[in-house]
Amino acid sequence: MFENFFRSQTIPGTSKIAMLILDGLGGLPREAGGKTELETANTPNLDALAGKSALGLSVPLGPGITVGSGPGHLALFGYDPLACEIGRGPLEVLGVDFDLHPEDVAARGNFCTVDENGILTDRRAGRLPTEESEKIVEKLQEIKIDGVDIFVRVVKEHRFALILRGNDLGSNVNETDPLKTGNAPNELIGLDVDSKKTAGIVNLFVEKAKAILKNENKANMILLRGFAKLPVVPSFQQMYKLNPACIAVNGMYRGVSRLAGMEILEVNGIELADEFSTLEKNWDHYDFFYLHFKKTDTCGENGDFDGKVRAIEEFDAQIPRLLALNPDVVIVTGDHSSPAVLRFHSWHPVPLLLYSRYCRPDDIPVFGERACAKGSLGQINAKHIMPLALANAGRVAKYGA
Amino acid sequence: MFENFFRSQTIPGTSKIAMLILDGLGGLPREAGGKTELETANTPNLDALAGKSALGLSVPLGPGITVGSGPGHLALFGYDPLACEIGRGPLEVLGVDFDLHPEDVAARGNFCTVDENGILTDRRAGRLPTEESEKIVEKLQEIKIDGVDIFVRVVKEHRFALILRGNDLGSNVNETDPLKTGNAPNELIGLDVDSKKTAGIVNLFVEKAKAILKNENKANMILLRGFAKLPVVPSFQQMYKLNPACIAVNGMYRGVSRLAGMEILEVNGIELADEFSTLEKNWDHYDFFYLHFKKTDTCGENGDFDGKVRAIEEFDAQIPRLLALNPDVVIVTGDHSSPAVLRFHSWHPVPLLLYSRYCRPDDIPVFGERACAKGSLGQINAKHIMPLALANAGRVAKYGA
Repeated sequence: MFENFFRSQTIPGTSKIAMLILDGLGGLPREAGGKTELETANTPNLDALAGKSALGLSVPLGPGITVGSGPGHLALFGYDPLACEIGRGPLEVLGVDFDLHPEDVAARGNFCTVDENGILTDRRAGRLPTEESEKIVEKLQEIKIDGVDIFVRVVKEHRFALILRGNDLGSNVNETDPLKTGNAPNELIGLDVDSKKTAGIVNLFVEKAKAILKNENKANMILLRGFAKLPVVPSFQQMYKLNPACIAVNGMYRGVSRLAGMEILEVNGIELADEFSTLEKNWDHYDFFYLHFKKTDTCGENGDFDGKVRAIEEFDAQIPRLLALNPDVVIVTGDHSSPAVLRFHSWHPVPLLLYSRYCRPDDIPVFGERACAKGSLGQINAKHIMPLALANAGRVAKYGA
Repeated sequence: MFENFFRSQTIPGTSKIAMLILDGLGGLPREAGGKTELETANTPNLDALAGKSALGLSVPLGPGITVGSGPGHLALFGYDPLACEIGRGPLEVLGVDFDLHPEDVAARGNFCTVDENGILTDRRAGRLPTEESEKIVEKLQEIKIDGVDIFVRVVKEHRFALILRGNDLGSNVNETDPLKTGNAPNELIGLDVDSKKTAGIVNLFVEKAKAILKNENKANMILLRGFAKLPVVPSFQQMYKLNPACIAVNGMYRGVSRLAGMEILEVNGIELADEFSTLEKNWDHYDFFYLHFKKTDTCGENGDFDGKVRAIEEFDAQIPRLLALNPDVVIVTGDHSSPAVLRFHSWHPVPLLLYSRYCRPDDIPVFGERACAKGSLGQINAKHIMPLALANAGRVAKYGA
């Protein structure tokens, strides 16, 4: 309800907002009495910015809930992650950076092995190497069916994604994957008129795929599951009257940004410095920039405390490039915590910094978990960060007289 | 909505959670500029634990709301106290440690005095002493009515509890208590089919009771009110996949725990040390322990500031016995505040300590109201403590990818 109300209050403007997301930023001390990754890192630029900022801790979804990057980002963008869940098929497609349209139906696919009677003997076709999958996917991409465009994309190893694009395709279907060996794959069944259409197309696709794959040694059949469309969410233009851009290297983050109506900017390279170059180059053309840094999460998940510290320091070194552009509002936070000691995403709230000329500074010149816990933003729901950013950008009208 | 979502995320495990509740823990300074009861108490063990814990203040129900121990505990157990209100009849029954079943209808009873015309002259039968009530209750317990089991239990002085156990008994009835003298007791009226059945049984019971009591000097009639069933709530097993146990001396707390599906453990004695002995003895057999300490509240309600300080110190002295068991998660808090200067429950949020290997410690080695106000958990709704405890115990699955 607040979301709808807030949307009615946003107004256009020329101010610029930069939202910098260090994936899995939040951490834990390595040993009792010690410091977290962020507290350990030498971050003079972030600390200086923190001193002029309002600080707090961002709660991605709710107390005790650990989120994946999908719902974590939806919340940072101001959406309710429970109200706009991304299905498994679309999520796989976002991960390979495919431009999924709202009307598309997407599914996760596996190459598998069946015996001469069509009975499943290996759900993963011996974990087919990615190089081999690529060749087979090329063959499947040749399949044509009237009235629908079909896209097949390699994901990794035995996994691929299937996208159907056409009119009136429903996604209320079962799965062809019986989930255990010793069974034949299921026929797809649609539960409403539009979904029956989808089921008919998919069953035909599977038949043609089976014929194409019949001489393959391992990957002689396919399994499909997680059929879904993208959730329909209002765009940043609609909700916030912003003209937003995404700077991210990994497909998933580009995909969620596309869902929010962001322009996906080209990054020449895969380094953080390349992302900041993209930011500089495009600064004049957009008024909202989401910039994503993956390395912090990767190190956290690998249990690499020192690597995460270095990644944070690498990020800190780029901050002057942003500040030189004179942004009106700067957000620095993460989509969730990924403490190296846990080697996994965690439920802990995430350090948050909000800078603007009109924020109320906490005078705490440290960016860290315990410093942010003392900040005036307190524990704030991640989905309320965008409203605060917009207010600081002068983009929210007064309510009532 | 969050509660339902959370329930779908919990996973089984072997970790152990101990929730220690000091009833009415929160306090106020005795004089301006002074310390609260908890701040005054010498608590070396709680302070040391606080230094390794995340601290905060638990809000039992909402800003400015003072709760009783019933809703206070429901919130601590993760329920919404407004959505699962315990009626006055069942509450009275829980207080006498009766094992109330979900289908039972319970009411509060008063012995009263009526004149020769059946008109109420004393609603409390001269505040009949408990010993006399006990004898009369024995007589009422002899009443038999076809198709229903009837239980009558002494509460205190002129008060007793009535429980009807049978099939299809409704609780949508009025009260026989007219609430003022000069009136005759009301006949019970049921507002639906099942409640008409209850009304018929109760009216018959009252008639038989009146006949039995007709020669009593004061207690020659009964009044009944607060008819209700227990609320139906999901158990700890269903919500959290925990195997929980309750360690409490007083009936009310055992009753609310039973409602949550906890096993009620036997305590040999009524002292706190006895409760900790029960904890030690049963440690291997459960994975969640709720331990309740009443004395802090009793002293608060009596206005006994020093007594409450001593009670807290008594509690502190037992903490090493818990820690020796190596619990994975420890919660220490109260169900509400009971400042001695108010001689009553109060609305003030309650000091909260959450310890686990994976909490994010605040490095505040003091357990007290003002210390907890600086903690990273901030002001947290009591019903969100269980989600945090479960996350710290590794019992919550990641949401989304």
